Amino acid sequence: MSNTIGRLYKVTSFGESHGRCVGVVVDGCPAGHRLDSEHLQAELDRRRPGQSNVSTSRREEDRVEVLSGVFNGVTTGAPICMLVWNRDMDSTRYEEHRWTPRPGHANYTAEKRYGGHQDYRGGGRFSGRVTAGYVMAGALAKQVLAVTHGIEILGYTSQIGSHKAPDMSFDQVMSKTEMNPVRCPDPDTAREMEKEILKARDEGDSLGGTVKCMALNAPPGVGQPVFDTIEGDLAKALFSIPAVKAVEFGAGKALASMKGSESNDPYTVVGDRVETASNDMGGVLGGVSTGAAIEFTVTFKPTPSISKPQRTVDLKTLEETTIAVEGRHDPCIVPRAVPVVESVAAIVLLDHMMQRGHVGQVLGELGELHG
Amino acid sequence: MSNTIGRLYKVTSFGESHGRCVGVVVDGCPAGHRLDSEHLQAELDRRRPGQSNVSTSRREEDRVEVLSGVFNGVTTGAPICMLVWNRDMDSTRYEEHRWTPRPGHANYTAEKRYGGHQDYRGGGRFSGRVTAGYVMAGALAKQVLAVTHGIEILGYTSQIGSHKAPDMSFDQVMSKTEMNPVRCPDPDTAREMEKEILKARDEGDSLGGTVKCMALNAPPGVGQPVFDTIEGDLAKALFSIPAVKAVEFGAGKALASMKGSESNDPYTVVGDRVETASNDMGGVLGGVSTGAAIEFTVTFKPTPSISKPQRTVDLKTLEETTIAVEGRHDPCIVPRAVPVVESVAAIVLLDHMMQRGHVGQVLGELGELHG
Amino acid sequence: MSNTIGRLYKVTSFGESHGRCVGVVVDGCPAGHRLDSEHLQAELDRRRPGQSNVSTSRREEDRVEVLSGVFNGVTTGAPICMLVWNRDMDSTRYEEHRWTPRPGHANYTAEKRYGGHQDYRGGGRFSGRVTAGYVMAGALAKQVLAVTHGIEILGYTSQIGSHKAPDMSFDQVMSKTEMNPVRCPDPDTAREMEKEILKARDEGDSLGGTVKCMALNAPPGVGQPVFDTIEGDLAKALFSIPAVKAVEFGAGKALASMKGSESNDPYTVVGDRVETASNDMGGVLGGVSTGAAIEFTVTFKPTPSISKPQRTVDLKTLEETTIAVEGRHDPCIVPRAVPVVESVAAIVLLDHMMQRGHVGQVLGELGELHG
Amino acid sequence: MSNTIGRLYKVTSFGESHGRCVGVVVDGCPAGHRLDSEHLQAELDRRRPGQSNVSTSRREEDRVEVLSGVFNGVTTGAPICMLVWNRDMDSTRYEEHRWTPRPGHANYTAEKRYGGHQDYRGGGRFSGRVTAGYVMAGALAKQVLAVTHGIEILGYTSQIGSHKAPDMSFDQVMSKTEMNPVRCPDPDTAREMEKEILKARDEGDSLGGTVKCMALNAPPGVGQPVFDTIEGDLAKALFSIPAVKAVEFGAGKALASMKGSESNDPYTVVGDRVETASNDMGGVLGGVSTGAAIEFTVTFKPTPSISKPQRTVDLKTLEETTIAVEGRHDPCIVPRAVPVVESVAAIVLLDHMMQRGHVGQVLGELGELHG
Repeated sequence: MSNTIGRLYKVTSFGESHGRCVGVVVDGCPAGHRLDSEHLQAELDRRRPGQSNVSTSRREEDRVEVLSGVFNGVTTGAPICMLVWNRDMDSTRYEEHRWTPRPGHANYTAEKRYGGHQDYRGGGRFSGRVTAGYVMAGALAKQVLAVTHGIEILGYTSQIGSHKAPDMSFDQVMSKTEMNPVRCPDPDTAREMEKEILKARDEGDSLGGTVKCMALNAPPGVGQPVFDTIEGDLAKALFSIPAVKAVEFGAGKALASMKGSESNDPYTVVGDRVETASNDMGGVLGGVSTGAAIEFTVTFKPTPSISKPQRTVDLKTLEETTIAVEGRHDPCIVPRAVPVVESVAAIVLLDHMMQRGHVGQVLGELGELHG
Repeated sequence: MSNTIGRLYKVTSFGESHGRCVGVVVDGCPAGHRLDSEHLQAELDRRRPGQSNVSTSRREEDRVEVLSGVFNGVTTGAPICMLVWNRDMDSTRYEEHRWTPRPGHANYTAEKRYGGHQDYRGGGRFSGRVTAGYVMAGALAKQVLAVTHGIEILGYTSQIGSHKAPDMSFDQVMSKTEMNPVRCPDPDTAREMEKEILKARDEGDSLGGTVKCMALNAPPGVGQPVFDTIEGDLAKALFSIPAVKAVEFGAGKALASMKGSESNDPYTVVGDRVETASNDMGGVLGGVSTGAAIEFTVTFKPTPSISKPQRTVDLKTLEETTIAVEGRHDPCIVPRAVPVVESVAAIVLLDHMMQRGHVGQVLGELGELHG
Repeated sequence: MSNTIGRLYKVTSFGESHGRCVGVVVDGCPAGHRLDSEHLQAELDRRRPGQSNVSTSRREEDRVEVLSGVFNGVTTGAPICMLVWNRDMDSTRYEEHRWTPRPGHANYTAEKRYGGHQDYRGGGRFSGRVTAGYVMAGALAKQVLAVTHGIEILGYTSQIGSHKAPDMSFDQVMSKTEMNPVRCPDPDTAREMEKEILKARDEGDSLGGTVKCMALNAPPGVGQPVFDTIEGDLAKALFSIPAVKAVEFGAGKALASMKGSESNDPYTVVGDRVETASNDMGGVLGGVSTGAAIEFTVTFKPTPSISKPQRTVDLKTLEETTIAVEGRHDPCIVPRAVPVVESVAAIVLLDHMMQRGHVGQVLGELGELHG
Repeated sequence: MSNTIGRLYKVTSFGESHGRCVGVVVDGCPAGHRLDSEHLQAELDRRRPGQSNVSTSRREEDRVEVLSGVFNGVTTGAPICMLVWNRDMDSTRYEEHRWTPRPGHANYTAEKRYGGHQDYRGGGRFSGRVTAGYVMAGALAKQVLAVTHGIEILGYTSQIGSHKAPDMSFDQVMSKTEMNPVRCPDPDTAREMEKEILKARDEGDSLGGTVKCMALNAPPGVGQPVFDTIEGDLAKALFSIPAVKAVEFGAGKALASMKGSESNDPYTVVGDRVETASNDMGGVLGGVSTGAAIEFTVTFKPTPSISKPQRTVDLKTLEETTIAVEGRHDPCIVPRAVPVVESVAAIVLLDHMMQRGHVGQVLGELGELHG
């Protein structure tokens, strides 16, 4: 499928960093959903660069255009093509580095993969800019999930470099994440993170980090074992975000050094519902949702493009050389990645809700299942 | 697709823990491959329980039967159905715990997912036993990868509880992993791991751990961006193994606290080939292989079934109660999971090699690409 | 996908004519359906050879075995593996004709497709025997369609050689089709058809014909435009039946010489429902069901294996020669193909009903949509 | 998949008749193909309305725009988004007929399918205008097939109303089809067809017909049994063209009244190649190509929109009424459908050539298989 993901809510991505546009075709969105264009644009704005001093100064206006699938403001059931046009591109530097691949960057593998025919300007198809399309498709998915089931998906920056956020409640995340440029709901940690990013930027270096994401109100019983599990499908989608190198659910890697008596989430009764008293499993057992929040953590590697000199090879002469990448790059991509992680999660979760029959192909007045 | 994975090398899984059999249908295996039945059986034997004192005492003879797709010992291009019959099952205890779900186990979510119709005996469809099918399909994939490209896939136990193996070379892993019951190539660590497992067993508890896996000799340029990346497809497949909760590539989670100048793998020239001087990226950039070893680490949670009493709920009365799971369970599943992780990796990697055109649909005398 | 068909009700076929078995894995059958094994076996018996003097004398007992996915007689939601073991095979003659392909038969293309590795005995993977698997999956689909929506699928022999059946009502088809060996509900035509088949058999020749099939009670609005139309998916599935060479909906080919004023089915009101006054469109407009009976006609070519001498080529010497195919072959496959056509239609229709949300993933007491 | 077709050469369609545009995303086109934009536009021009007095007077300029996937005039391996903007639309009449469905047209089923949310202007998503997208994707596929294998795909009008073209050679079709407005290579028949169309138009009526199509130079051994056959995949794709109601291969429906001794194509030797002496099988046996021309015939129903009054129902009042469809409609769609049929065939055939490994993912200088 390569550039398409999903089974019932299917997203096909297209576009390159320095081509004419970046977009998606969403196939399978239920008919009858009143598109909230302002929310869609607001989500794109969260991803946009140039929001603060911790991100690249490339200016992308990124006004979403909806080319199909919406009539009188309502989805029709036909495929929805959405895109943003590319502007403010500076392709001059890329010719210069054409044959000296940047360490940690996909331009070497793109060369191998596409036999030299790839669009190498600005990372081309491998650029983080393609995630603008994920956000459009994800914003739409968020709307449908909210309308039909009150499902909310929220992410935040949980680590940058050496600074880790303490555990945060859902309410804290909701109210405080957007109050600082690094998108960490803990103000003290946020300040430290910001400082560390600026320091790295000044050193011509970059930082990695993690995004923690949670989806509330997903009913129990969602997920398709054995291969199309909630975890597997989320992980696959998350690894399509450039720079992601690890995906963990619940306590994640820490489970390796725990005992069963510690990690098993005990069942308890709250009101008339069965719940788990803890959530080290991240809301998923056997690939299927438990009804607790679906929680996962995504690790981003440091931005590979740095201005510090690095060892590389001239592919034409096969001689070793160095490269120093000038240009407008994020010293840490994590803050801008938060809405992308949420979007990818929304796409996967809506797809699974539809597979489970919880969301119909035509939405009624209240968004309920309807044929 | 639920129970099918892969695009060109497609594996469909079927069977339950206490049903008649567990098996797979492999669709898309190239024609002309001489099936090595002994290797296939040997791989199954590595997964089999009852191999040592660190695993369950359930005896599964697990002789593979090939029902279709092989003629005169050679694959025909037709779908290959393989299975093992179930024997030595003890279903008596499951009726007793029918309505008191085991914490950390999928029986609660299975109930929610299948409305009470699921086969609940021995975990049914959610049992680790289904991975016997993965191993059959994976052993076949390993054979084709080895014949066509000399690709080798090796895993080992890199952590159990508090004990972590030091970094190991590929040769060490190859020669030493199978020399102890925990499948850790470092003998000292292996002894400690074994002790910790036995201690947990005696306490009626269980342990988690990690498996590290590497694939050698994959050419550069394999992988399908943006959604069908090497990392995404491996991760998705790995999460189909029961108890997996995290997947990391290369330095994985540690990248969150590294700088770009540290994590970027510099390019260098070895002989007449471009290589990376380090491999913190795990052999994948932009979802596409670099030519370095593809390396990843999988975290397994502790086995949920433990004999220590745990809090749970009686689903019929909605009253809280406790459960103590008797029966034959692995106190730590990690050693037996090693061949399963390798198998899943082989399935995904062969699929990607076929998508890339490196493996044909009909193998010639030397396994080369041939129409 | 090759050997898998369907999106939510997915059928994976395996097995060869002279291998160990022929079977299917059905993935996605709703949980909670009480399997009617007698109906399943009865459907297989309709396809079985040796039922009368108009079919091959090969005896296939064909007792279906269910290997997975059913627990206490009820589907669990897990994949259902079903198969029949092969018996009474006579593979002796096939070695003899290994290098002289039979005209009209797939053994030449199989040779080209699989580079000589195919199982050539009895047509191997290309044999009509693989349709036993379709019938198992189709019988199950018929049961679910009947329970959930009262949908009935019926086919009959509408032409053999020069003899065409007059138009028949659904009731006539239901009551009379199984009363003669050619499965034509018109007794007079049936007698003529039978005579013509026996004559062809005696001449060492074979006959083609058509099967007409209708599905009653499908609601309007089923079908997924633009590519996954009811017509397209039915046609694709029907062409997987060996010997099918044409598929028509409604008036089919006759529409080429009609005018719009003749072929457009006018809308009318019957009770409180909108219906079409005629059904030249075969119950489908724009790839979506109208609510009228879905009707289509399938053309089968004459059985290629005939005992009359035919021109062929020795593939080893590239010299022209003749071949006379002895063995037990149907002089006309059409009567036995009727349940196969119905089965394929049931598979496709159930899949579309599930995509449309009309059939849930878990069936309640009355088969209604339920999560 | 709904709006996506293909496995390796994947086409996703979007757009509506009276929306902003109609387009496609092509995913999987090999990298390294120099796009022939003039050919692409010329193919679109063949489909365009307003070419002659036998088609609708709606003017669609239809200049193709390539939004992604092409760099320096060469395909990059990234998804190729292509579209035409809609102009010269007249949506005024559609509001008027909103609740009185046109007999033979999809607006009734669209209403049922999408719960009233569909874009009903000009047929919306069900309009023949969406086939402009098929032609873009098909023109590109034709180019790749021609460059890599010299495969040519040609169609012509073989019947309109009562007039059938005699059998035509490939050379005749190539040289004469485009010489008259009905695209029938036999001039005498063409004149009669044109007359009949004009007569139907004057009567406020419409005509059906057939398109015969042939693909030359496909190698033997292409096709994926048992479900993804050449015939099945072609048929499925062809039924996505509005108004198609029947698909036949080779002698097609006539095979029903033939004997095996007549219909089996004998093998013979031509030069050093095995060929069939006739081609009643349409170049496909067992779903796999024989090496002969792949030949099929597609039946189109008469255009449903006619100005003659027809019976219909007012969906709001459930009262019977009549409708007379004014507006610019083709009295016979067949001539304009010829390039659409060819395009769909090219898409399917390239997809199968890629699955078979005959076309690589990266094209070298001569278009050969290359990694």
